[in-house]
Amino acid sequence: MLKFDLLKTDAPEGDYLGSHARRGRLTLNHGVVETPIFMPVGTYGTVKGVAPSSLEDMGAQIILGNTFHLWMRPGQEVMKSFGGLHGFEQWNKPILTDSGGFQVWSLGAMRKITEDGVTFASPVNGDKLFMSPEVSMQIQTGLNSDIVMQLDECTPYETNGHLTTEAEARKSMEMSRRWAVRSKDEFARLENPNALFGIVQGGMFEHLRQESLEVLVEMDFPGYAIGGVSVGEPKAEMLQIMAHTPHRLPAHKPRYLMGVGTPEDLVQGVADGVDMFDCVMPTRNARNGTLFTRYGDLKIRNARHKTDHQPLDTTCTCYACAGRPVDTPAGRTGVSWDAGGRDGFSRAYLHHLDRCGEMLGPMLATIHNLHYYLNLMREVREALDAGRFGAFRAQFKADRARGV
Amino acid sequence: MLKFDLLKTDAPEGDYLGSHARRGRLTLNHGVVETPIFMPVGTYGTVKGVAPSSLEDMGAQIILGNTFHLWMRPGQEVMKSFGGLHGFEQWNKPILTDSGGFQVWSLGAMRKITEDGVTFASPVNGDKLFMSPEVSMQIQTGLNSDIVMQLDECTPYETNGHLTTEAEARKSMEMSRRWAVRSKDEFARLENPNALFGIVQGGMFEHLRQESLEVLVEMDFPGYAIGGVSVGEPKAEMLQIMAHTPHRLPAHKPRYLMGVGTPEDLVQGVADGVDMFDCVMPTRNARNGTLFTRYGDLKIRNARHKTDHQPLDTTCTCYACAGRPVDTPAGRTGVSWDAGGRDGFSRAYLHHLDRCGEMLGPMLATIHNLHYYLNLMREVREALDAGRFGAFRAQFKADRARGV
Repeated sequence: MLKFDLLKTDAPEGDYLGSHARRGRLTLNHGVVETPIFMPVGTYGTVKGVAPSSLEDMGAQIILGNTFHLWMRPGQEVMKSFGGLHGFEQWNKPILTDSGGFQVWSLGAMRKITEDGVTFASPVNGDKLFMSPEVSMQIQTGLNSDIVMQLDECTPYETNGHLTTEAEARKSMEMSRRWAVRSKDEFARLENPNALFGIVQGGMFEHLRQESLEVLVEMDFPGYAIGGVSVGEPKAEMLQIMAHTPHRLPAHKPRYLMGVGTPEDLVQGVADGVDMFDCVMPTRNARNGTLFTRYGDLKIRNARHKTDHQPLDTTCTCYACAGRPVDTPAGRTGVSWDAGGRDGFSRAYLHHLDRCGEMLGPMLATIHNLHYYLNLMREVREALDAGRFGAFRAQFKADRARGV
Repeated sequence: MLKFDLLKTDAPEGDYLGSHARRGRLTLNHGVVETPIFMPVGTYGTVKGVAPSSLEDMGAQIILGNTFHLWMRPGQEVMKSFGGLHGFEQWNKPILTDSGGFQVWSLGAMRKITEDGVTFASPVNGDKLFMSPEVSMQIQTGLNSDIVMQLDECTPYETNGHLTTEAEARKSMEMSRRWAVRSKDEFARLENPNALFGIVQGGMFEHLRQESLEVLVEMDFPGYAIGGVSVGEPKAEMLQIMAHTPHRLPAHKPRYLMGVGTPEDLVQGVADGVDMFDCVMPTRNARNGTLFTRYGDLKIRNARHKTDHQPLDTTCTCYACAGRPVDTPAGRTGVSWDAGGRDGFSRAYLHHLDRCGEMLGPMLATIHNLHYYLNLMREVREALDAGRFGAFRAQFKADRARGV
């Protein structure tokens, strides 16, 4: 099931003329998701470096799983024995799974795409495997994810230096469209109780995007994604598609921009009418020592942090920056380590952990970055609720430019 | 400060003739420690793979820091700027630091030991450095650890195939004795407000151990350690020293067996009169996929776990085995994933995480293994409190032999 309530749309305030931003509420089989929302990516049945309890603590409402990866390991039989991904990974809130199409496509020379589907060799054990709209629906039904994605072909921006032409983008988009029909039929045949999203393709060509979305809207999916962005194109082209497509999708259905992006991209995406985002950036960057903060990004490996007692972000309430809330049963006893009365970990300590290759470094960095993204979306929702999204955007931009 | 209350000693029950086991309570500058206790090892200012909040949740009362490592990174200046290790690593319960002697000694050909101290090249940047009893006391005073260890020379069991002779063990023990005097003098001169432990050496020679302990007892340290065990000797020789030394130390002072060992070693050590243990085994083995359980050890990489829905240990209450307690603010909502109503992670899931090289694998394994060790000591304390340590030992042995 899927129910989407459009709670509020952005309205003009002062000099601000408004945007396509909206505040919504998504009800799925495993719970309610307040939108706009960022969804942490849990590729192999785990959001890298963080326990489900920490995800709960930081307010994650829905996470992703990757169908292709979970098909390879642990495989469908193990997954089905747990009744799906929720039981396997111990996450009882909503889950969205991708179709596996992007990963199969990424295998490059290792795979062959035909109208039927994609033939490829398993990167795990070399087995010859076949992915099709039907197979994707079958695997995702086994995963029992709350939101299932249609199998699509992710139209590349360029291939070995060759920019995708309009004809190529059209051909690809049209196959995705036919795969949307087959996905929908198989999803229905399997009596999957969850919700299937269609994916708009069309490369960097607005009229192809328009064609794609019209056909998909006609098919009446419960939600829509914008795919084929953040695939190596210049930022300006990505922003162009973001400005074009989301707000043209049906107002009363959720809109999901796949694989995007930086904090700035997310805020822009909300303004463009997007409700849902996912990206590996907060988790991957955390493991590489790049931390997001209200006042810009911070590279913890930089020697200047070696002696710095400040937390990553003085306004952040995550476990890394503020320690454990004192009201939890095993909470701290009010001892604070710096003059400001804060109880979190210092930049000096995080710098030290990174330098020593200690696991706690990426663990704390992951908690911080995911908390930053989730909190950013919380602030976006609050701004929309309060009718002050325009002011929020201006403040966000000024804060991020300030520097840490 | 250090205050040690001897609460209870083991007494005969039924056929059981009693042991040297004792139940105690250690009061230190940062809090109270119930003994016997296991102390997780936090080499570089972090117990590898686990956040301080998790250590609190699993009931850790005191952790270790390694003086040598922390001297190298982040160095004394950073540490002092935080007022010591507690503030740096955000752990406000007691900390014990070793002297750095063992690590310097482990440098092998890279160091030169004289009566004065040890000259060596920094393994981090090649700087020529000097460690002495005075230097060790100065660094540990900067760390502000609740329990400080004297600098000693760790007498090896063998060196390149040559077994340490009695004459060599005596010479080494006698130098450690002289270093104990210098450590005590410098500790006093620095007006360190914490507690300094002497370390009994003497290799595998009982009469040397006896000599060593008598001199140290004469010096009236607030606590004593047994060093130079678990350094490559056969298990029988280690057990012989464990049977010899601890119970000959003063009854009203805490006794710490350094670097030991398996669960079986800990229970034997308690019977031999030891109050405090530390070992890297639970954390290191966790990262290598070896899990301790009530019913024996388990290698999570074994293919037989691939489809197993059971938790690691059905009697374990750690986060990995039992999930989060439902009474915490963000606790689970009572949804359980297996027939037994349990809410933890399955062996199949942990096997999967290990196979995929996911960080959450060693994270959960570390939580489990440390919880196992800490809980084992909790059960030991409860048995001693209830006057049934003999029965506990028999049950422990039978359970561990059962197999998982």
